Amino acid sequence: MPLVTIKIFEGRDVEQKRGMVKDVTEAIVKTIGCPTTAVQIDIVDLNPENIAQGGQLFSDRR
Amino acid sequence: MPLVTIKIFEGRDVEQKRGMVKDVTEAIVKTIGCPTTAVQIDIVDLNPENIAQGGQLFSDRR
Amino acid sequence: MPLVTIKIFEGRDVEQKRGMVKDVTEAIVKTIGCPTTAVQIDIVDLNPENIAQGGQLFSDRR
Amino acid sequence: MPLVTIKIFEGRDVEQKRGMVKDVTEAIVKTIGCPTTAVQIDIVDLNPENIAQGGQLFSDRR
Amino acid sequence: MPLVTIKIFEGRDVEQKRGMVKDVTEAIVKTIGCPTTAVQIDIVDLNPENIAQGGQLFSDRR
Amino acid sequence: MPLVTIKIFEGRDVEQKRGMVKDVTEAIVKTIGCPTTAVQIDIVDLNPENIAQGGQLFSDRR
Repeated sequence: MPLVTIKIFEGRDVEQKRGMVKDVTEAIVKTIGCPTTAVQIDIVDLNPENIAQGGQLFSDRR
Repeated sequence: MPLVTIKIFEGRDVEQKRGMVKDVTEAIVKTIGCPTTAVQIDIVDLNPENIAQGGQLFSDRR
Repeated sequence: MPLVTIKIFEGRDVEQKRGMVKDVTEAIVKTIGCPTTAVQIDIVDLNPENIAQGGQLFSDRR
Repeated sequence: MPLVTIKIFEGRDVEQKRGMVKDVTEAIVKTIGCPTTAVQIDIVDLNPENIAQGGQLFSDRR
Repeated sequence: MPLVTIKIFEGRDVEQKRGMVKDVTEAIVKTIGCPTTAVQIDIVDLNPENIAQGGQLFSDRR
Repeated sequence: MPLVTIKIFEGRDVEQKRGMVKDVTEAIVKTIGCPTTAVQIDIVDLNPENIAQGGQLFSDRR
């Protein structure tokens, strides 16, 4: 704890994920005052066919 | 908001997903009175090896 | 299966939730062709202090 | 209900998953007293690139 | 990791939850072979007004 | 998208949550390059009776 889940569009490379988990962890530690090692993050890579807003798939917007 | 997650068996094609997000969005908008664009849906495609009921994997039922 | 989670702002009454789960279930059954009894929905009522967009809590927008 | 989600590192085979859902289901039935058939479990297989603790991806620990 | 989420009907007391997390953890450790301390579980207590099956709220079944 | 869920121990005040969503949003925008307004965060406040590690509730650790 804290346990964080981040859903993003698939296609980000490991460099971006590495930076994201580092900076998100620091942001949480600084603002709520928990130990760094307590922060766990899992990332869900989503295909645009599996996300919709306003009733429309993102894969149909492109 | 509303944020909707729908877990389904893998194998549905994009036609079915397209129809599902359209109709689910309309159902929510009609019944709780939010803007259409506020409804976000993400879909999780599940392998029958990754779902169980009553202690048994769905992949073992077939 | 399907398993559906719907996160909404807290404050909707049971009439709205009753209508929402009925219509969302019908929308899913019609579009992906599963049995009605297979559809399960859980609803999460969110306090505006617990939701943010663009880095701002919804409770600060009001 | 109960609805259970288990996130594990990818790579477990179907034997391990079969045993896990059987034993987890029995543990829940025994301790909270619900029908066996009411317990549903879905499993999420996570790539070590998609999990972090303490700001570091598990794929960078190895 | 493993990270487990268990959604149950509200009303279980702390004795039942204590037993459930102990036995579910042992079941996972035994079947997939991870360290006991690696297993984290969070419990969601659900109001019957917030769960539906087959298009009907559980609070309407009673 | 991105959609972020953060589970924390209950008891953080709105100042801490305000800071957390602001800084987490900035961290994500900077590292994966999405628009600020696209980032949505929901927070789950967890009672120590509803979280366990290593088979033990946090409420029993104190």
